[in-house]
Amino acid sequence: MRNSSRGEVDPFIVMDVMEAARLAEEEGRHIVHMEVGQPATSAPLSARRSLMTAMENDALGYTVALGIPALRERIAQHYGEWYDIDLDPGRVMVTQGSTGAFILAFTALLDAGQTMALGAPGYPSYRQILKALDIKAAEIPTSEKNGYQLVPDDLKGVDYDGMLIASPANPTGTMLGKDGLGALIGDAQERGAAFISDEIYHGIEYEKRAVSALEISDDVCVINSFSKYFSMTGWRVGWMVVPDAQVRQLERLAQNLFICAPHAAQITALAAMDAREELDANVEVYRRNRELMLAGLPEAGFDRIAPPDGAFYVYADVSDITDDSRAFARRILDEAGVAVTPGLDFDPGRGSQTLRFSYATSTEDIELGLERLKTFMARR
Amino acid sequence: MRNSSRGEVDPFIVMDVMEAARLAEEEGRHIVHMEVGQPATSAPLSARRSLMTAMENDALGYTVALGIPALRERIAQHYGEWYDIDLDPGRVMVTQGSTGAFILAFTALLDAGQTMALGAPGYPSYRQILKALDIKAAEIPTSEKNGYQLVPDDLKGVDYDGMLIASPANPTGTMLGKDGLGALIGDAQERGAAFISDEIYHGIEYEKRAVSALEISDDVCVINSFSKYFSMTGWRVGWMVVPDAQVRQLERLAQNLFICAPHAAQITALAAMDAREELDANVEVYRRNRELMLAGLPEAGFDRIAPPDGAFYVYADVSDITDDSRAFARRILDEAGVAVTPGLDFDPGRGSQTLRFSYATSTEDIELGLERLKTFMARR
Repeated sequence: MRNSSRGEVDPFIVMDVMEAARLAEEEGRHIVHMEVGQPATSAPLSARRSLMTAMENDALGYTVALGIPALRERIAQHYGEWYDIDLDPGRVMVTQGSTGAFILAFTALLDAGQTMALGAPGYPSYRQILKALDIKAAEIPTSEKNGYQLVPDDLKGVDYDGMLIASPANPTGTMLGKDGLGALIGDAQERGAAFISDEIYHGIEYEKRAVSALEISDDVCVINSFSKYFSMTGWRVGWMVVPDAQVRQLERLAQNLFICAPHAAQITALAAMDAREELDANVEVYRRNRELMLAGLPEAGFDRIAPPDGAFYVYADVSDITDDSRAFARRILDEAGVAVTPGLDFDPGRGSQTLRFSYATSTEDIELGLERLKTFMARR
Repeated sequence: MRNSSRGEVDPFIVMDVMEAARLAEEEGRHIVHMEVGQPATSAPLSARRSLMTAMENDALGYTVALGIPALRERIAQHYGEWYDIDLDPGRVMVTQGSTGAFILAFTALLDAGQTMALGAPGYPSYRQILKALDIKAAEIPTSEKNGYQLVPDDLKGVDYDGMLIASPANPTGTMLGKDGLGALIGDAQERGAAFISDEIYHGIEYEKRAVSALEISDDVCVINSFSKYFSMTGWRVGWMVVPDAQVRQLERLAQNLFICAPHAAQITALAAMDAREELDANVEVYRRNRELMLAGLPEAGFDRIAPPDGAFYVYADVSDITDDSRAFARRILDEAGVAVTPGLDFDPGRGSQTLRFSYATSTEDIELGLERLKTFMARR
């Protein structure tokens, strides 16, 4: 059997951690999961009820490729509510998760052989999707002093056709302010490059509000998801906001590459958008967890951490402890019973000296995990 | 805003028909829908109930990329039940519909610039997905005498890296027998080319049983879906069976390009596989509709039709009536109130002289539609 070369993407190292954690649990050990990148909560109750009703009354066949009109309108309304932006629902596309949106955006914007600029560390699937689509990833190391976000200085001498940023970011949780985001959009627009803003962690923010690229320019591609704030990872539904002039092309691509986002997920998502009380209660749990992490991790000895403005991650520089984050994460799992992610997935260059801690689990588990980490580090 | 060239895929012409039909209905006209390519029925009742229970008890987060193990096992069992094949569940991947499976297979098998051989007429998204992935489509005109399926003679002089067939096919409903399928697999294997078999209409067959490529060789990629026989189009869940040696690579690609198929859809699909009684009753409706079509279409004047062995389509050569199938389909809609699909989507070359009639709707509507077609053709 033949294989393509572009299909040879890297494995996720976190998968080894998760498999090791699973095996440990099978052996009867209790593991605290600080490796998972998803909420432990389900879709809001009212959203699930809405789907139950729909399943009684509707065959749930294909929807149109751009998504159920009511959902596109509700998403546009959301930009009014959250960002005070008057958005035309015609610019909103419902997608198969943010992942589906990345595939559509990358395909519509860049041809094979062109270059996407993005910062490292970053979400590992960015570069794997780019590879699968034959787009070059210019992964630019970001600085701790810039909160591991790109700044225009980083882009000097980099020839790029598109730029991709994330705020709040995975794995760091750091955000770009309006000025920082505006400077990057300006850099891209000066060069005639596409600008893609990954905003999937919006709504999970703690001290200041996350800025949408749409507050700065209409000539950007904004990608979002129902997976994180809306607590619907497994439903595979997200959205994208694009310039008017690109809707038709993206619609055609979506018709062919996806047909439509899952109908059941679209119905559930529509109702989830009005379940603010339940969803904000989830964020309050993350807020409490974050406070515990920001106090407990430095006590344990993990004190070089990026400012976690949003999302549910803390990214720690552990270069004073190890230069083999993979082996170190394995030791933490084996000896402390806490699963954490080595930074290598996010930053192949410097990730051997970083760890990502997720606090998307219960507060009880976070308290237990921090105790275990303190004991482990004290004994080490 | 910039656009890529590979993102410039063709529009679906059927979308214009559907929009015109929708507008006519808004104006109060009754339209018979012979243009739609999906069952009018919902997922089986027991499957929807299974999801309702799961929504009470499970957060429905991400599943592993290859799919819920119980579903992979149930699919493997299905190959025993339907084809008498002993299939290792480890070779089964659950995908985001067959569309997700095509993206994965094409990406894993062919590099940019390589060539996929496929017959025309065929499902239009094949060539659009190939274009988006920078793979050349060698679309080979098939013969009416071969049931619009490829035969090895068609491939002489064609240099290809992969071959894609569908049986039963869209738009024709024709099937490849074991000999015909075996000859094509042999041609591909002799050349070291990949072989992909689209089997999404299996289970919807009327006079003989559809043959799976897995009955002939393990060194093939078989793609299937829960959309058609299992009546779950909008759920976006399908599957793929691949050689052992390719599972790991495809798993990595799926982790990055899709994360997982929708969790809710996987649970629904698992239960749907045991709802044979309800699903077979759907097929009995198609069978009755097909009989009506095979009698009524020739009476109306559409008598040059491919043998519709399976699926729910009849493909008619209307070259004696028109060489502008698009305008003719529009006239049928306007004057007869029946929406049909011009062949151009399926065969850009010869499709101006063909029409596709779908009978995936109710028997009542089929009877009414045939009466209208007879009246229209008699008046014409």
